[in-house]
Amino acid sequence: MDLEGKDVISMRDFDKETILHVLNKAREIESCPDPALLMGKIMAALFYEPSTRTRLSFEAAIKRLGGGVIGFSDPDTSSTAKGESLADSIRIVEGYADVIVLRHPLEGASRLAADVAIIPVINAGDGANQHPTQTFLDLYTIQKEKGRLEDLRIGFLGDLKYGRTVHSLATALKHFAVELCFISPPLLRMPEYVLHELDEAKISYREETSLEDAVRHLDILYCTRIQKERFGSAIDHEKVRGVYRVSKQTLVSAHEELRIMHPLPRVDELDPGVDESKHALYFEQARNGIPVRQALLAMIMGKI
Amino acid sequence: MDLEGKDVISMRDFDKETILHVLNKAREIESCPDPALLMGKIMAALFYEPSTRTRLSFEAAIKRLGGGVIGFSDPDTSSTAKGESLADSIRIVEGYADVIVLRHPLEGASRLAADVAIIPVINAGDGANQHPTQTFLDLYTIQKEKGRLEDLRIGFLGDLKYGRTVHSLATALKHFAVELCFISPPLLRMPEYVLHELDEAKISYREETSLEDAVRHLDILYCTRIQKERFGSAIDHEKVRGVYRVSKQTLVSAHEELRIMHPLPRVDELDPGVDESKHALYFEQARNGIPVRQALLAMIMGKI
Amino acid sequence: MDLEGKDVISMRDFDKETILHVLNKAREIESCPDPALLMGKIMAALFYEPSTRTRLSFEAAIKRLGGGVIGFSDPDTSSTAKGESLADSIRIVEGYADVIVLRHPLEGASRLAADVAIIPVINAGDGANQHPTQTFLDLYTIQKEKGRLEDLRIGFLGDLKYGRTVHSLATALKHFAVELCFISPPLLRMPEYVLHELDEAKISYREETSLEDAVRHLDILYCTRIQKERFGSAIDHEKVRGVYRVSKQTLVSAHEELRIMHPLPRVDELDPGVDESKHALYFEQARNGIPVRQALLAMIMGKI
Repeated sequence: MDLEGKDVISMRDFDKETILHVLNKAREIESCPDPALLMGKIMAALFYEPSTRTRLSFEAAIKRLGGGVIGFSDPDTSSTAKGESLADSIRIVEGYADVIVLRHPLEGASRLAADVAIIPVINAGDGANQHPTQTFLDLYTIQKEKGRLEDLRIGFLGDLKYGRTVHSLATALKHFAVELCFISPPLLRMPEYVLHELDEAKISYREETSLEDAVRHLDILYCTRIQKERFGSAIDHEKVRGVYRVSKQTLVSAHEELRIMHPLPRVDELDPGVDESKHALYFEQARNGIPVRQALLAMIMGKI
Repeated sequence: MDLEGKDVISMRDFDKETILHVLNKAREIESCPDPALLMGKIMAALFYEPSTRTRLSFEAAIKRLGGGVIGFSDPDTSSTAKGESLADSIRIVEGYADVIVLRHPLEGASRLAADVAIIPVINAGDGANQHPTQTFLDLYTIQKEKGRLEDLRIGFLGDLKYGRTVHSLATALKHFAVELCFISPPLLRMPEYVLHELDEAKISYREETSLEDAVRHLDILYCTRIQKERFGSAIDHEKVRGVYRVSKQTLVSAHEELRIMHPLPRVDELDPGVDESKHALYFEQARNGIPVRQALLAMIMGKI
Repeated sequence: MDLEGKDVISMRDFDKETILHVLNKAREIESCPDPALLMGKIMAALFYEPSTRTRLSFEAAIKRLGGGVIGFSDPDTSSTAKGESLADSIRIVEGYADVIVLRHPLEGASRLAADVAIIPVINAGDGANQHPTQTFLDLYTIQKEKGRLEDLRIGFLGDLKYGRTVHSLATALKHFAVELCFISPPLLRMPEYVLHELDEAKISYREETSLEDAVRHLDILYCTRIQKERFGSAIDHEKVRGVYRVSKQTLVSAHEELRIMHPLPRVDELDPGVDESKHALYFEQARNGIPVRQALLAMIMGKI
């Protein structure tokens, strides 16, 4: 349970006890942040793929605890343009920093980086694979809003096939007694390996195609953007974009306590009209990235 | 007059008393800066349009007072590329920062951002519209150099039609007993709405086309670049570029105390030969951005 | 020997005594860094050409001593795009910072910047010309590893014609009783002016084309990348790329104590198989950039 020196690559590396421990630490840090906790520490933010939200969240997280940041947000200005391998870049940067936060378009890049690096590496998204700090903040948001992680009915909506965040969150939820509902067009169903993992953990789930039917019974509805860049062909993307759109109308039959989450950015799938409703939890969810990332950074650097 | 929690969007939102109050605070902060005044505060610098000078000035301003910065300088690496609305970006970023500094190519973008955000927003330029911190630093520069803002003859030279900084400064000067002189080619005259505002405020002004005639009588000559990007057609730009060029020769008939200002960057309109003359005030003017932005940041964050 | 207020533009400006003094200070700072030494100081990192490694090294160096950074890593988002001269950019930025670190594609750009600026300027590479902090860290690495700078047999391999780092290091080594060996294809021989300088300093050197022959007798082998961007024609580049490749096999006849250096990034010329051997010194070399740059920054800002 001591995370000092550990990498944060995949939710699969964290058991239930450790997950809850991280969420507890996030709560402590949110209620009482120490602005000098990470003084003198340097985080290298290596973004080989743009992700403003994740980058700014990590940067704000460490800066609010007194740490500093080096890095890049644009692979074209990096040494990659000179043909350097990721392994070399990591080995050089680890001479400059105390922790590496890596975003990379290729699956497995973070694991490779962690194998090479002596200092801890945090995966901030590697292709369609994992984005564990997003999952931690999703869990934190659910727990903070609902007071628990057990005994909840949680729906996932949209691109369940390519959506990295939903795979990761769904498999993390297998540790808790939840009921899951997967709402997607047939083309974008949750992959077999995720369903298989849930079966093994004896988590009950069902698959739906109608949002209106599903929404009546949910405590949480987790929406995702249908990302063009994850599709092989533009035609496949056209078939499914805009198939769901969460709006005040869609939510008419939802019960009072339904909360809507979304990793953001959104495009068409979540109507801004929902923002002012009691259901909207997504901006709060984004804010929760700060204490969760602070907790993980501080823990792996041995400061809490 | 208390600016805590306020936005800085347009000079129109500031009355004479508040303007003078900000300049006073800038003077105090310049003579005695407190390197820990904004410790723990985070400024989000969101530059949807490149502006190195303005960005570096804001960043230096807050860092010299102990604060931190997150943000981007290049819209292509931001979530905008994923289709996110400005309102969403603002609502997410405000979860990470204490103040937002926004540069945007579209007029009105800052007002929209300020409406959406709970934390204060500073407009660092929105299209051809407003750039209030530039105007504050211009006023600060004049006051510091001349010891007063009243009883001055101030000329504006160049692109008075599209020049955001001259509109903003000219209308801010209506609070003070100045005489204005607008020197431009006929195509680039000061817009009617600015002249009308000056008429209402009973500020005397005249319009000229000859720089040589005008320069004899001025205390301040405020030059501007004729910016290609503000023109609809390349032909219109060709007609007017290079029509004025301030040089040692042009300034032969200027009186001793004339000071030349320029928001920079300059291209052809201001000869580097002027830099070493007693007339040059523009580099000092750029430096004055620091205390002025420090004062505004500290005031809206409730620290002075 | 007091470097306060001085620029760091070229190794030619440093005599033997000053070089050794800087290396001593780097050693002191490495063994006992003061995290508040440069508190409140701002470094402007102006990178008109991408160089992630150098930029991150400088940023980490000053941040670990409590200082802050402003700047850009991408010329397209700078005012240069608006047509501003380098001299103007420097004069404005020096109003915001305490030291300027400049990377520029044109030879002589740093000298020009230093002439214009009142605050100190550090050359972080100007075209094929100089990159003095790289040379300082190379000397530091040799001295730290070998315990001395005298009485060493040092080989240089690869592009000796266009390789900025090798010119600079070779001429700096003229202060010390070394034996040099230049290994390159005939097209990429060390330029006459460097050989002439060594002749004058009575440094013995020989030129080779075979790596295998040379390697038997060396204490240090300094490899360089053959950089496409330095070649006028793609054909000339094709003729020489891949002509040398340092690998475990090439090093079979090397003696035990041979150490391999490389300014990195590498492409094909240095096999990753060497990384785990006792010969590899290049990652350590990259790390040494931190204390060396810290020493130089602190010295020119008058803090040590």
